[in-house]
Amino acid sequence: MANTEVNKLWGGRFVGDTDPIMEKFNASIAYDQRMWDADIRGSKAYVKALEKAKLVSTEEMEQILNGMDQIHGEWSKGAFVIKAGDEDIHTANERRLKELIGAPAGKLHTGRSRNDQVVTDMRLWLRDAITTLTNDTLQLISTMVERAAAEIEVLFPGYTHMQRAQPIRWSHWILSGAIAGTPFDIDRELLQKELAFDGISLNSMDATGQRDFVVEFLFWASLCLTHLSKMAEDLMLYSTKEFSFIALSDAYSTGSSLMPQKKNADSLELIRSKAGRVFGRCAGFMMTLKGLPSTYNKDLQEDKEAMFDCYDTVQAVLQVTTGVMSTLKINQSVMEAALSPDMLATDLAYFLVRKGVPFREAHGISGKAVFTAESKNIALNQLTAEDLSAVSPLFGSDVSSVWDYRSSVEQYSAPGGTAKTSITAQVEHLRTWLKKQAQ
Amino acid sequence: MANTEVNKLWGGRFVGDTDPIMEKFNASIAYDQRMWDADIRGSKAYVKALEKAKLVSTEEMEQILNGMDQIHGEWSKGAFVIKAGDEDIHTANERRLKELIGAPAGKLHTGRSRNDQVVTDMRLWLRDAITTLTNDTLQLISTMVERAAAEIEVLFPGYTHMQRAQPIRWSHWILSGAIAGTPFDIDRELLQKELAFDGISLNSMDATGQRDFVVEFLFWASLCLTHLSKMAEDLMLYSTKEFSFIALSDAYSTGSSLMPQKKNADSLELIRSKAGRVFGRCAGFMMTLKGLPSTYNKDLQEDKEAMFDCYDTVQAVLQVTTGVMSTLKINQSVMEAALSPDMLATDLAYFLVRKGVPFREAHGISGKAVFTAESKNIALNQLTAEDLSAVSPLFGSDVSSVWDYRSSVEQYSAPGGTAKTSITAQVEHLRTWLKKQAQ
Amino acid sequence: MANTEVNKLWGGRFVGDTDPIMEKFNASIAYDQRMWDADIRGSKAYVKALEKAKLVSTEEMEQILNGMDQIHGEWSKGAFVIKAGDEDIHTANERRLKELIGAPAGKLHTGRSRNDQVVTDMRLWLRDAITTLTNDTLQLISTMVERAAAEIEVLFPGYTHMQRAQPIRWSHWILSGAIAGTPFDIDRELLQKELAFDGISLNSMDATGQRDFVVEFLFWASLCLTHLSKMAEDLMLYSTKEFSFIALSDAYSTGSSLMPQKKNADSLELIRSKAGRVFGRCAGFMMTLKGLPSTYNKDLQEDKEAMFDCYDTVQAVLQVTTGVMSTLKINQSVMEAALSPDMLATDLAYFLVRKGVPFREAHGISGKAVFTAESKNIALNQLTAEDLSAVSPLFGSDVSSVWDYRSSVEQYSAPGGTAKTSITAQVEHLRTWLKKQAQ
Amino acid sequence: MANTEVNKLWGGRFVGDTDPIMEKFNASIAYDQRMWDADIRGSKAYVKALEKAKLVSTEEMEQILNGMDQIHGEWSKGAFVIKAGDEDIHTANERRLKELIGAPAGKLHTGRSRNDQVVTDMRLWLRDAITTLTNDTLQLISTMVERAAAEIEVLFPGYTHMQRAQPIRWSHWILSGAIAGTPFDIDRELLQKELAFDGISLNSMDATGQRDFVVEFLFWASLCLTHLSKMAEDLMLYSTKEFSFIALSDAYSTGSSLMPQKKNADSLELIRSKAGRVFGRCAGFMMTLKGLPSTYNKDLQEDKEAMFDCYDTVQAVLQVTTGVMSTLKINQSVMEAALSPDMLATDLAYFLVRKGVPFREAHGISGKAVFTAESKNIALNQLTAEDLSAVSPLFGSDVSSVWDYRSSVEQYSAPGGTAKTSITAQVEHLRTWLKKQAQ
Repeated sequence: MANTEVNKLWGGRFVGDTDPIMEKFNASIAYDQRMWDADIRGSKAYVKALEKAKLVSTEEMEQILNGMDQIHGEWSKGAFVIKAGDEDIHTANERRLKELIGAPAGKLHTGRSRNDQVVTDMRLWLRDAITTLTNDTLQLISTMVERAAAEIEVLFPGYTHMQRAQPIRWSHWILSGAIAGTPFDIDRELLQKELAFDGISLNSMDATGQRDFVVEFLFWASLCLTHLSKMAEDLMLYSTKEFSFIALSDAYSTGSSLMPQKKNADSLELIRSKAGRVFGRCAGFMMTLKGLPSTYNKDLQEDKEAMFDCYDTVQAVLQVTTGVMSTLKINQSVMEAALSPDMLATDLAYFLVRKGVPFREAHGISGKAVFTAESKNIALNQLTAEDLSAVSPLFGSDVSSVWDYRSSVEQYSAPGGTAKTSITAQVEHLRTWLKKQAQ
Repeated sequence: MANTEVNKLWGGRFVGDTDPIMEKFNASIAYDQRMWDADIRGSKAYVKALEKAKLVSTEEMEQILNGMDQIHGEWSKGAFVIKAGDEDIHTANERRLKELIGAPAGKLHTGRSRNDQVVTDMRLWLRDAITTLTNDTLQLISTMVERAAAEIEVLFPGYTHMQRAQPIRWSHWILSGAIAGTPFDIDRELLQKELAFDGISLNSMDATGQRDFVVEFLFWASLCLTHLSKMAEDLMLYSTKEFSFIALSDAYSTGSSLMPQKKNADSLELIRSKAGRVFGRCAGFMMTLKGLPSTYNKDLQEDKEAMFDCYDTVQAVLQVTTGVMSTLKINQSVMEAALSPDMLATDLAYFLVRKGVPFREAHGISGKAVFTAESKNIALNQLTAEDLSAVSPLFGSDVSSVWDYRSSVEQYSAPGGTAKTSITAQVEHLRTWLKKQAQ
Repeated sequence: MANTEVNKLWGGRFVGDTDPIMEKFNASIAYDQRMWDADIRGSKAYVKALEKAKLVSTEEMEQILNGMDQIHGEWSKGAFVIKAGDEDIHTANERRLKELIGAPAGKLHTGRSRNDQVVTDMRLWLRDAITTLTNDTLQLISTMVERAAAEIEVLFPGYTHMQRAQPIRWSHWILSGAIAGTPFDIDRELLQKELAFDGISLNSMDATGQRDFVVEFLFWASLCLTHLSKMAEDLMLYSTKEFSFIALSDAYSTGSSLMPQKKNADSLELIRSKAGRVFGRCAGFMMTLKGLPSTYNKDLQEDKEAMFDCYDTVQAVLQVTTGVMSTLKINQSVMEAALSPDMLATDLAYFLVRKGVPFREAHGISGKAVFTAESKNIALNQLTAEDLSAVSPLFGSDVSSVWDYRSSVEQYSAPGGTAKTSITAQVEHLRTWLKKQAQ
Repeated sequence: MANTEVNKLWGGRFVGDTDPIMEKFNASIAYDQRMWDADIRGSKAYVKALEKAKLVSTEEMEQILNGMDQIHGEWSKGAFVIKAGDEDIHTANERRLKELIGAPAGKLHTGRSRNDQVVTDMRLWLRDAITTLTNDTLQLISTMVERAAAEIEVLFPGYTHMQRAQPIRWSHWILSGAIAGTPFDIDRELLQKELAFDGISLNSMDATGQRDFVVEFLFWASLCLTHLSKMAEDLMLYSTKEFSFIALSDAYSTGSSLMPQKKNADSLELIRSKAGRVFGRCAGFMMTLKGLPSTYNKDLQEDKEAMFDCYDTVQAVLQVTTGVMSTLKINQSVMEAALSPDMLATDLAYFLVRKGVPFREAHGISGKAVFTAESKNIALNQLTAEDLSAVSPLFGSDVSSVWDYRSSVEQYSAPGGTAKTSITAQVEHLRTWLKKQAQ
């Protein structure tokens, strides 16, 4: 029973030898042409191995290498022409090679499956991509570190639960973001170890059928942007009229089509939004992988668009974040005016701890002082000596030492803390680390 | 402190009035130009409302309507030129309108925010898109229904847990797929109710700040493709050498670059893989929405690429699935040869149930018969009268009636079952339903 | 080759007839016992169908019904004892029935697979669960509607992009949340249609092998909590020291173990966080479904824990949100003090539009006025007549009418707007809708 | 305006000082009590640091240490009683300490926030958990390696696209699974580096406000189970009646409640399904993290249930997989009978390549031979000398050497290949690696 005959029974949409929709569905050239350079590099390396194995002659190898260089030139100049039938970058380059050097082109991929070629090209491409992203990350971290060094004197409220908690240095906040940027670098080490190719795959089925290096890249991209979404959320809060801690540069703001007075922090909103996009790529590809039989299945073709999109997105986010962080202006006076005496309630408790009161008890006493001040509708540091001694006889006149934001901050001089020495140490640590990365 | 000055301190990447990367990051014209027609329709409707409200004169309205028609013509002919500064389709159309008719163009969007315009255009576009997808779905269902009608006589093993369970009609399987296709149609009703715009948004903040209609579309797309991934998995199993129940048309298969004998069911693998992709878009956009403050935030801009990509993907999957289903050939003899007597073990138990044995007990007795046959290394229907009466005296010579696959199948004549009458009823039900949809 | 023998070769962890870890891995009784009532109801209905089909006698039916009632009593009183071997609720109830009435118990599930039973019980359970959630949602909406009605006079800034945009009524914000609550109700209609069982499954393979009703429930739960995460984010912003628009009741706040002065909006943070949890359940189950072959596979067992967890989570979130919304106190004076003249810049543009200036031009003029005020470091409404006429001669003394927040708000009297009449209409609409739901 | 008064206006559900639902919503003791040991270890270490800082006396330290040891004993014996008000494990242990030693208990957590304590306990718990999972993984890998060594002589078809591709050794497949198991181990190194605590957090805000170590664990768990879902899918295919390559031990199979002859590979289906569950936990927690402001927010409380559930799930999956792999029986004769001459078509092409034909051309010639065989409806190796020389004159009588599966397999002796030497090398590599891990 011929297809056409069968088909008439239930009236199919398409009755020919090849369904053009299927062809388009199957083709990847539209996006995988980005790997043209990796494909050429991979092929040039492979043909040398073939020559060593005496599967191509030295002369044939030379022809192929020259042909590949010529194709490289065409891509570089934007002169390479994709033709109908070039379903992917690998087919396209090989088709062109044949046009240029004839028969020996057919020997290029002896004993090498398309899938081998795809995976190798992706690894080569991704290795370069990660180098670029790493540099972008270093640029961002560098901007933040230098900014933290320059603005180390600025205090402002630290928030937990979006409520004012304790006074901290602005630089402390900046550096917490800089450190959140570093996880991406772990990625680099992890992937580079694999991508440097100084090792070889232990098992050929495993090598061709899994895409761990892609999933791991997508995951690190998601985690990286989740961190940046947190930083963007903070900055958006800080740039509300109500906080007014920072002002974004016009270069990273836009106006409203309706409201003439608006200046929107679009850049921050875009940064925040991209965590979802990149995570979606990771989630989608992991779902595609779930329950696949081992070795190659065409399902794996979803790897490339996800990888490219995440790369482009992460790169743009890193660059825009660098721009935002290097151009935003802080309003030091507003930031410091936001510090309020109740944020020193912990210090008040510590005052008692130093006099031997157990912390849980001191916490309770300080809470009572806060309550007294609230009842009297005055600030915590406006409580009189009587007020304070009523809650604890240990409060003497020396309690006045507590009411100083800078002293408060200087207490936290342990590593990672918000004291000036501690922040300086963090800055120096990161500067050293950055120098090491640059080598 | 000027930006430039500030900037020198920590060496920012970019020190100008607008960061070109930010501009690109912010622009959506590359993908939202797909909504050119919806944007023009929306604007034409809006200007009529403005005229009614006496915010534009009748003459101005006519100028705008004519200008918009001219722009429509340019897009239709591919003659519309996108210029630098056209950050989205809405800006582009309005910029062109101004070139064409001058000042009155500035009145077009009086009292209408960009976000209002975007949401309206998306709803208009999606309404059309869903109509197209619904038609594609109906085409697929129709193909499957007619195929089920034509091949109703073919029996093959029903599987649960990927193990042969009971004999069923091939048409029963086909129709289970056709029904899985229908959920998408619910989507249509749900969305159309909203998109028909015969109702109005109850609350303006809610109307502009949420994207439920997009999320719901993405979810339905995911659920629809999850169903098709299941159908593709079944068909891949059936097309393995080991099953050999079906053969895919060459139009939906590809060869191997390495192994000359291979014919791969790439189409099915692509169908299966797309469930992940579309789900990723849904998951990503839901993550972007999580925790956003109310009303408009730029984060919502992620809505469009997700919507377009899901539309394109679902449409391609539906069309390719229709092609696959209308051209695949079944191997009836292999399918029926795969039926084995042990699949009638349940029937053997029912034989006893009809003689008054409680089902749980009958199930145990039938299990013993299976065990006896396995011990003797013979098929279940090759057990002798002695063998059977040893497990239960109720097995008489009338037990032979059990060993007939067609009779077995005919037992399931309840609605939804695998008997011929039941399958015919399902076919008729779906044909009637399809006719109703076509009206 | 016996298992034990085989095993010695590579030293397996376990060499017996049943692996206890596998047994535990396989069992679902720990969580599916929640469906004890649904299981009994389903079984009682099924035995009546068996009697009608003459597969059990009237007397046997009575025995089974009485036995089931007795089991129902045991569960109600907490007296039902789960025994070793009761791998799920269905086995447990049937085992107990046999203990109570003996042999006829074995007839109860004649011709009914375990999977049929599971799916029926889940649908029965979920129908009740959705009724509960619907009532919780109505309670939340009712609280919000009445609050909106009571506090209709309060104005505060509407925000877009987290920046002050235009003055709106506080009730407008409340009602935008109430409407976001309603989508969940659509769910009810959709599922109830299916769960009312007045229809029957069209195809038996489809009925047992898919779990659309679970996935749809999980998705609606995710979308519902995504909306509530948005409301929680707004409320957290409003309860920061910087905004100080609202104060949460102590019943929904907690203190800090470290900082005595802190009062954290933990309830809101928990509400916000649960969107992720519920989405994760939906995403996880969809991944489990991807690429499964049709009909029943044990993978589907993941459905129940996801369903139960989402139900519990959504219910707790709805109840806590109702509590938060009914007890929070607003600071009307702070809210209204946050209104600033620049938020009337759009009104300033509309002033010109009403005098015939095209909106785009008026927007530009108003923008210039904003710029002038910023340059002079004064509020927009402090611009002199000279200042204003310098940007446009159309600004006369009548421009002073613009500088009134209440008049500004009253302009938006179109349906869904923020004018008092419009808000009242929304309140009435929702009250009517709530009454209809209560019937 | 008092709460109660306010409340009457809109009739809230709850009008008291604390909402019991909120209390339950807020409490974590039900699941975080699993960290009792980590909490005690952490507190014992912390009190030593306090003593060194002279914030507790040596005597107080001793009292606390002794009290903690006593609490440890109570937990070990199951004698610890959780009381109302014990909202988490940290409160519970401290409350008990106070009962046991009185006032000094209040000094235990001086200067330490609850969140510090939670994060430390989680890290300690997870470090132990990862050690357990690593051991489970090593057990699984060891089982597979020894099985691969013992069954090295068995050949069977390698599949790509679920179609027979080339003959491979069964051990090659087993080892591809063993290697897929190893990625989990990378996790261990990565996390242990962090969890060994020999380093310290660089920035205190970053340390308390992020949960990278949890997200990374959840991700590695997802990736690990995605690999195992692939292995389970393969094994399910191999255990279908149609493949019949393997038979699962009864210990990992279950019967059907309806069909007496069924033996279902439930264990494999459960393994496959858990990839979705664990991924859902990862996805859900990442969504919860998206857009959170920095430092601690209660949203982070979602971390623990996700972590515990993933640990339990991964552990069960590893143990069951080990059981499945150590007890399944292979059907060597069926596996080798599944090898078919067309799987040697690539070898036929290589035969020509060795005679100097370019691979692409050789591939085409071999394809023609396949076509000829299919046309004649004979196996590829049944083509006559005439048939073969008709497609290429290079095919002489020496072509017969191609038709040997064992020789074919032996060609792939490169590292990672399927030749006996290569498989043996993989076995030895993994044995050595396993020994190193055991040290």
